[in-house]
Amino acid sequence: MKIKILLVGKIRNEFIRVGVQEYRKRLLPFFNIDIEYLQNFSDLPKEIALSKEGEIIKKIIKDKKYIVSLDKEGKELSSEEFAYKLLDLDKISQNNEIIFIIGGIYGIQEDIKKSSNFILSLSKMTFTHEFALLILLEQIYRGIKILRNEPYHY
Amino acid sequence: MKIKILLVGKIRNEFIRVGVQEYRKRLLPFFNIDIEYLQNFSDLPKEIALSKEGEIIKKIIKDKKYIVSLDKEGKELSSEEFAYKLLDLDKISQNNEIIFIIGGIYGIQEDIKKSSNFILSLSKMTFTHEFALLILLEQIYRGIKILRNEPYHY
Repeated sequence: MKIKILLVGKIRNEFIRVGVQEYRKRLLPFFNIDIEYLQNFSDLPKEIALSKEGEIIKKIIKDKKYIVSLDKEGKELSSEEFAYKLLDLDKISQNNEIIFIIGGIYGIQEDIKKSSNFILSLSKMTFTHEFALLILLEQIYRGIKILRNEPYHY
Repeated sequence: MKIKILLVGKIRNEFIRVGVQEYRKRLLPFFNIDIEYLQNFSDLPKEIALSKEGEIIKKIIKDKKYIVSLDKEGKELSSEEFAYKLLDLDKISQNNEIIFIIGGIYGIQEDIKKSSNFILSLSKMTFTHEFALLILLEQIYRGIKILRNEPYHY
């Protein structure tokens, strides 16, 4: 499995930085997760910010086919369903990269969302982009444990 | 507002311990959150563990009326709805303690859930008890910011 995560913005909370490192380390025996931190334009008006952030995202994903956008209005999955979604994406991508996109405070540009393979909602609740990253990594790790039928204690 | 959180089990991940401290610190100008770590019996069979953990919880909540149990099968709320739920609970409790219960790996004993004022689901996804604590604290903090109409950047 090859996974890249695009995150609009930086990590500002030290505990999240450490948590992200922790899950990457735990995932390393299975695969390396590539995280790319993209410039955010949240100081600009919403539509302009979305468009500028979208431009950068589109350059990265232009040849890529297996895109999951994170959005509160997307589909919620249980951890088990998410694990099997990962497996499905890995199969149809034939070991190409699966890309997750986590938008900035305004979310993700509409046409990027629409052209995604899947729009995933982590919760009805709103999280900061960096908190969403932490949850996503935890669920990818949990997903791998589910698929391998291994216990996951903490 | 007075909030106590009962958590079955300890915090094992250092980044979660630091994150919990961080949100408690951010909440301190508004109120102190009391977190009580209860013994978990997850090495015992499920029903016995739930019952032993339940006994301890019941001793603590016996005179208390405003209980929110966390459970995946509970009701999901948006962050805004959660903020107003906090406000409602604070009003009806007349400034008495609101208690949140986060169960261990087997969840919370059925009769405790049933007698709760509210059963809250953070997501369809499963989280460890300590990860759920981190999310809950983040949402309480976000809720306070929403109620005070203050920006929340990170």
